[in-house]
Amino acid sequence: MSFLKDSKAKTKKVIFFGDSITQAGAQPGGYISLMKSMLSQQGITDYDLIGAGIGGNKVYDLYLRMPEDVLAQSPDIVVIWVGVNDVWHKSSYGTGTDPDKFEKFYQAIIDKLKAKNIKIILSTPAAIGEKTDFSNQQDGDMNEYSNIIRRIASKNNLALVDLRKAFLDYNLKNNPVNKDRGILTTDRVHLNASGNQLVADEMWRIIKNL
Amino acid sequence: MSFLKDSKAKTKKVIFFGDSITQAGAQPGGYISLMKSMLSQQGITDYDLIGAGIGGNKVYDLYLRMPEDVLAQSPDIVVIWVGVNDVWHKSSYGTGTDPDKFEKFYQAIIDKLKAKNIKIILSTPAAIGEKTDFSNQQDGDMNEYSNIIRRIASKNNLALVDLRKAFLDYNLKNNPVNKDRGILTTDRVHLNASGNQLVADEMWRIIKNL
Amino acid sequence: MSFLKDSKAKTKKVIFFGDSITQAGAQPGGYISLMKSMLSQQGITDYDLIGAGIGGNKVYDLYLRMPEDVLAQSPDIVVIWVGVNDVWHKSSYGTGTDPDKFEKFYQAIIDKLKAKNIKIILSTPAAIGEKTDFSNQQDGDMNEYSNIIRRIASKNNLALVDLRKAFLDYNLKNNPVNKDRGILTTDRVHLNASGNQLVADEMWRIIKNL
Amino acid sequence: MSFLKDSKAKTKKVIFFGDSITQAGAQPGGYISLMKSMLSQQGITDYDLIGAGIGGNKVYDLYLRMPEDVLAQSPDIVVIWVGVNDVWHKSSYGTGTDPDKFEKFYQAIIDKLKAKNIKIILSTPAAIGEKTDFSNQQDGDMNEYSNIIRRIASKNNLALVDLRKAFLDYNLKNNPVNKDRGILTTDRVHLNASGNQLVADEMWRIIKNL
Repeated sequence: MSFLKDSKAKTKKVIFFGDSITQAGAQPGGYISLMKSMLSQQGITDYDLIGAGIGGNKVYDLYLRMPEDVLAQSPDIVVIWVGVNDVWHKSSYGTGTDPDKFEKFYQAIIDKLKAKNIKIILSTPAAIGEKTDFSNQQDGDMNEYSNIIRRIASKNNLALVDLRKAFLDYNLKNNPVNKDRGILTTDRVHLNASGNQLVADEMWRIIKNL
Repeated sequence: MSFLKDSKAKTKKVIFFGDSITQAGAQPGGYISLMKSMLSQQGITDYDLIGAGIGGNKVYDLYLRMPEDVLAQSPDIVVIWVGVNDVWHKSSYGTGTDPDKFEKFYQAIIDKLKAKNIKIILSTPAAIGEKTDFSNQQDGDMNEYSNIIRRIASKNNLALVDLRKAFLDYNLKNNPVNKDRGILTTDRVHLNASGNQLVADEMWRIIKNL
Repeated sequence: MSFLKDSKAKTKKVIFFGDSITQAGAQPGGYISLMKSMLSQQGITDYDLIGAGIGGNKVYDLYLRMPEDVLAQSPDIVVIWVGVNDVWHKSSYGTGTDPDKFEKFYQAIIDKLKAKNIKIILSTPAAIGEKTDFSNQQDGDMNEYSNIIRRIASKNNLALVDLRKAFLDYNLKNNPVNKDRGILTTDRVHLNASGNQLVADEMWRIIKNL
Repeated sequence: MSFLKDSKAKTKKVIFFGDSITQAGAQPGGYISLMKSMLSQQGITDYDLIGAGIGGNKVYDLYLRMPEDVLAQSPDIVVIWVGVNDVWHKSSYGTGTDPDKFEKFYQAIIDKLKAKNIKIILSTPAAIGEKTDFSNQQDGDMNEYSNIIRRIASKNNLALVDLRKAFLDYNLKNNPVNKDRGILTTDRVHLNASGNQLVADEMWRIIKNL
């Protein structure tokens, strides 16, 4: 019985907490689904991967729905991936998030997870546009908010999946004509097959070593 | 001695929780200072009026600084007056507050105050521009966010100081040439002497009956 | 022969110059198509109604495409109907039109038409949202830009189709529950059957008397 | 007589056509004033340098005031330097300029100057923030609108002062701690002494060879 308990009870529940990109990530072909397939093929059975993405979410939407969507599920690990809408909604609705408020709510989420001894992985927002000469409209903010997340990760001594950097590096190699979409995204933001695979690879590399 | 105790010990601590308008309200000539003078002149000594306004604050700024600036002070009554920046920052920074998020954070503030048995008074945002034909740029949102606050007050059975209505009524009588400032505000938003007096009167009328 | 010439040569070419609402107005069921049917039923044959609407157009888009789309066609009358995107694009793209620039380009269009002795009819932008308590987000600007157009009409002694007023009056009678769409629009902006009929009626009333 | 003609009659009138940066450029210490001093020190007397900058101007403001402020003065050379407000006003007022409209009005200005055989020099917008890792909020648009201007210069075979590139190159050498102001600007946008000198040098290098 203790043997059974040992071999069974160690399943690690991982919640992917984010926006529409993560919502799509739980669909067939999405990055969470790809990770599940990878684990299954490798015979790794002790991870339970759960998508908790909602379209349009900004950092304070995550904060507001933490109790039900994260804490109530008692996860072992939470991967936070947010920021695109905090930046994008500035120009599309006038309701983006100030950088200092972005940091405060991000830290408040971390504090609540830490208080429950939940392991935390941060991710930088990948892209709003894939042009590599930093001429995508939101590149300034995307770089700045990624800097903020890197600083939060460092300050809190947390693991970071630097998707902003990974996407740029990939595009520098694979986007020679400076297209704004179609390399890792379908529409400048949401992931195509290559994008989902890249995110699955980058995230799993960090999750497995946590 | 018990008489003295009765008459003295019941000092009610009132915190005015808001943005730059409330920050100025605690200065000489501001609406909180005027209320203090009125009370003093009327020999009313059992109220302690405290300003807790910070310039630029939106509803979630109030939420974030509640623990230190409100709860830690154990007030009897909190007057919440917020909304101008939630609307205004849409066009001036791209970081205004979505209506549904405005309501959620407003309710979250109320829930925390209720949990401590603190009495709550809500106020609608008065003005960004004093023109009376609803041609001030933000009038649509100002009316909508005021509707939201009225709905929150009703749903939570809370007292409301409807400054949006009070300012419009006053301007309909006293602003015949449809000026955008100078009647109750200096700059379309912040209060002049008449504005401070009007707010002091409107607020005290509700506070004293709470 | 001269009789025939007299009775035939007087066809008046009317160009409807505007945005997506006018682009749809030239489609079956649209306000221009309805006006054509009305004229046909009444045996009025001396008007040639031409749609020149392009989706997303702001006042300076009209200005830029005047030479080809208006002047090159030598119209007798031009009905200008613009303003919704000048207001709307402020929050949806950050590229709306400043009020003073709106007035300058509007006047520049009028000056070019006047120089060709083309008769001009102005229209106010009807609606971005049909709520009647001025709580539609853009109501402040919609009222202000309508005021600007009314002032331009007055200053230039031009006929005005005040659709902003007509839509509000209609909604005050027919929108008792303060809905934001579905009375005269499908989506807060673009016209449903009732909206197209109202615009056709209001415009024809002015055109026939010009 | 031909000697006199050569030495005297050839004074070249140069108009610097732009926004607040150029308005300040005509003040003592400004880049136009510095250029005048340089020319005077070098004994170059056949240039008349004239500032025509107005604060807040976007590309279509330049277009609208061309007749009076440029064409009426019959310049030999016009240096166009615009773009900062076309980008900046997106977030500060919601009234920035769409990229395609920016290009159309820019080309319309060029066409009018070409029709008068006036020589034209274009400049890219230098900076809204001096951080060198492209994390200034408007960097994406600043790079994109600079690309547009470079394309216009190339298409029209016009001289270009690439201040965007010059400022970045200078900052990469002289801004090791990634400050957002104080290297070439006082406030992220307007020029300090070093900035005025850099612009004077860069512009004169192109003007003298035109």
